[in-house]
Amino acid sequence: MSDEIHLYDLKSQHDGLKWAEAGPGVIPAWVADMDLPTAPEVIQALQRRAEGDLGYPAWLLSQQCGPLAEAFAERMATRYGWEADPVHVRSYNDLNQALQVLLHVWTRPGDGVAVHTPAYHPFLDTLAIMERPLHAIQMRPEGESWWFEVPDLSGCRVLLLVNPHNPTGRVFTREELERLAEHAERHDLLVISDEIHADLVYDPYEHIPFATILPDRTVTLTSATKAFNLGGIRCSVAHIGSPEMREALDGQPPFVYGSANLFGVEATVAAWRHGDAWLRETLALLDRNRWAIAERLPPTVGYRVPEATYLAWLDYGRPGMAEVLKQEAKVLLSDGALFGPGGDTHVRLNFATTEPILTEILNRLNRAG
Amino acid sequence: MSDEIHLYDLKSQHDGLKWAEAGPGVIPAWVADMDLPTAPEVIQALQRRAEGDLGYPAWLLSQQCGPLAEAFAERMATRYGWEADPVHVRSYNDLNQALQVLLHVWTRPGDGVAVHTPAYHPFLDTLAIMERPLHAIQMRPEGESWWFEVPDLSGCRVLLLVNPHNPTGRVFTREELERLAEHAERHDLLVISDEIHADLVYDPYEHIPFATILPDRTVTLTSATKAFNLGGIRCSVAHIGSPEMREALDGQPPFVYGSANLFGVEATVAAWRHGDAWLRETLALLDRNRWAIAERLPPTVGYRVPEATYLAWLDYGRPGMAEVLKQEAKVLLSDGALFGPGGDTHVRLNFATTEPILTEILNRLNRAG
Repeated sequence: MSDEIHLYDLKSQHDGLKWAEAGPGVIPAWVADMDLPTAPEVIQALQRRAEGDLGYPAWLLSQQCGPLAEAFAERMATRYGWEADPVHVRSYNDLNQALQVLLHVWTRPGDGVAVHTPAYHPFLDTLAIMERPLHAIQMRPEGESWWFEVPDLSGCRVLLLVNPHNPTGRVFTREELERLAEHAERHDLLVISDEIHADLVYDPYEHIPFATILPDRTVTLTSATKAFNLGGIRCSVAHIGSPEMREALDGQPPFVYGSANLFGVEATVAAWRHGDAWLRETLALLDRNRWAIAERLPPTVGYRVPEATYLAWLDYGRPGMAEVLKQEAKVLLSDGALFGPGGDTHVRLNFATTEPILTEILNRLNRAG
Repeated sequence: MSDEIHLYDLKSQHDGLKWAEAGPGVIPAWVADMDLPTAPEVIQALQRRAEGDLGYPAWLLSQQCGPLAEAFAERMATRYGWEADPVHVRSYNDLNQALQVLLHVWTRPGDGVAVHTPAYHPFLDTLAIMERPLHAIQMRPEGESWWFEVPDLSGCRVLLLVNPHNPTGRVFTREELERLAEHAERHDLLVISDEIHADLVYDPYEHIPFATILPDRTVTLTSATKAFNLGGIRCSVAHIGSPEMREALDGQPPFVYGSANLFGVEATVAAWRHGDAWLRETLALLDRNRWAIAERLPPTVGYRVPEATYLAWLDYGRPGMAEVLKQEAKVLLSDGALFGPGGDTHVRLNFATTEPILTEILNRLNRAG
């Protein structure tokens, strides 16, 4: 049973949330971690650091965390043609913390936030708990892809853009981004642009940083944790393009939202500066996987091949399928109902795994379907 | 020049703040990092983690960060006889973040905070920037030690206790702590007790957690970073004994103050569970160092041998000596003026270094004195 052996091997190598929550014999394909080790250059950098100076880093008192801001600005320039200003970089533990901080200092309960739905569910949880009403920009299937209309955004103070989009895997086009920019200007919105999946875009699609379109209204959030599989290191970047937002953040106690950690910065800088060979190989695997799903998924299940991300957004046509598939197929998926309007008949499948495991997942889904 | 060789070796091994800020030929003895590698058990744990699962940890959604709270509670019970409740543990990046969060949710500008002075200067900076007036509890030299009288604490909402005390190295006695507890009850104060130096107490002194005296009013802050030389990992523990404070924190957005990182938790748990052999050896070195200072310091310099910490609080009898000693002795010390009332004629010397380097520091101070 070679699939069982692979499954056992993977489980024995993982002690994180993704595998911890999978019961006996269940393959987890939910939490957005990969079943792959990160780039060897990152592991080496972490090992060197473990043997080196673990004291207060030289960049401790710099808001930009020195090498973090520099590596971010270099990457934005070389990959995306965006001349980001390292002086405008701040660091947070992760993107959801950054979102909570930005909403906390910029908005009040009752202020609306526009988000494409279905939506990354921790962000929906944040809006609910902070009492910022969701204004849904509904993604609608069309042919092999998705489209959206922007509703009236009166009452909104923020556009929370997730591009590339999670869970549909859409990469928004320049025309779409410019349309969103018009609405942002019309309604005087701050744009918080989560671009964490930018490094996971498949040919021929192209990631366009929103800050290149509307620099002074945009806060760009990103992190190496998604493309380089480093969810535990807790290191993300916020590029605060809006001068008013910079001023608002500068009015907060300087350390109340924490500070960057040595291993997080070490891993991020190594990934961004030295990890691209590994990333290319990984993207090639993910590319094969996204098409393998299209070929082998039960034909009654709706699936639009994602343009980015390692997430497959599967429409089973009826709600409650995550629980059914956990029980019947022994595959643990994310329940689409968590993703808000338009999600309930869906499950989200994380396909960042090895080919034998993906084959086993698809076999199981076929047997259960 | 064997001292020069040691100095060169140390400098080549350190890229943190402490050594980065020392000019050519200057020995840094300011920032409270040690010039020693941490416990081998910690390095091994970090190396294992670098090769292991770097994804979202299994404890990601637990406020207590699972193993962190358990290792903390175990350590408090075995070393200090305090039955801390792991359920009341929260995690912050460092103690100054924790202080800013606690003041942010519990007090308003104008609310007074009582602190023993001289005081750990980042805390004074926090009070100044957050506009919480300092109510100084002045430490006064007496014989070989220090004493204090508690002034009228009307107008205070918080007692910020630093025990063992930085920079004097005093370990407060039960009688002193009980006296402070009386004042806390009389004025209805929250007690924020920074006990980060508890593991660095010399025989025969004994650390008493303030939470054992006034459990329901006390927030205990600690971290493995000080005793185990891990300033860069950004991982600290807050034990929230006060039910009202727990309720206030629960009313905040759940991730706005960030979350614990994988390497920080790994290092902390390894240090607390497996690092005590290293800690005993290190304390023996520090013990020799604190007495070497007493023997070899210029006789005109005031020095009370600390009961805890690796910090020597030196009275030169006139202000501005940090700059003078940097220029003339080529030793970088912390300027006592930063430590508030009673500090200006002092410098703080970090003696967590090797014996040859400490000898060289003392030679230089003698030549300059």
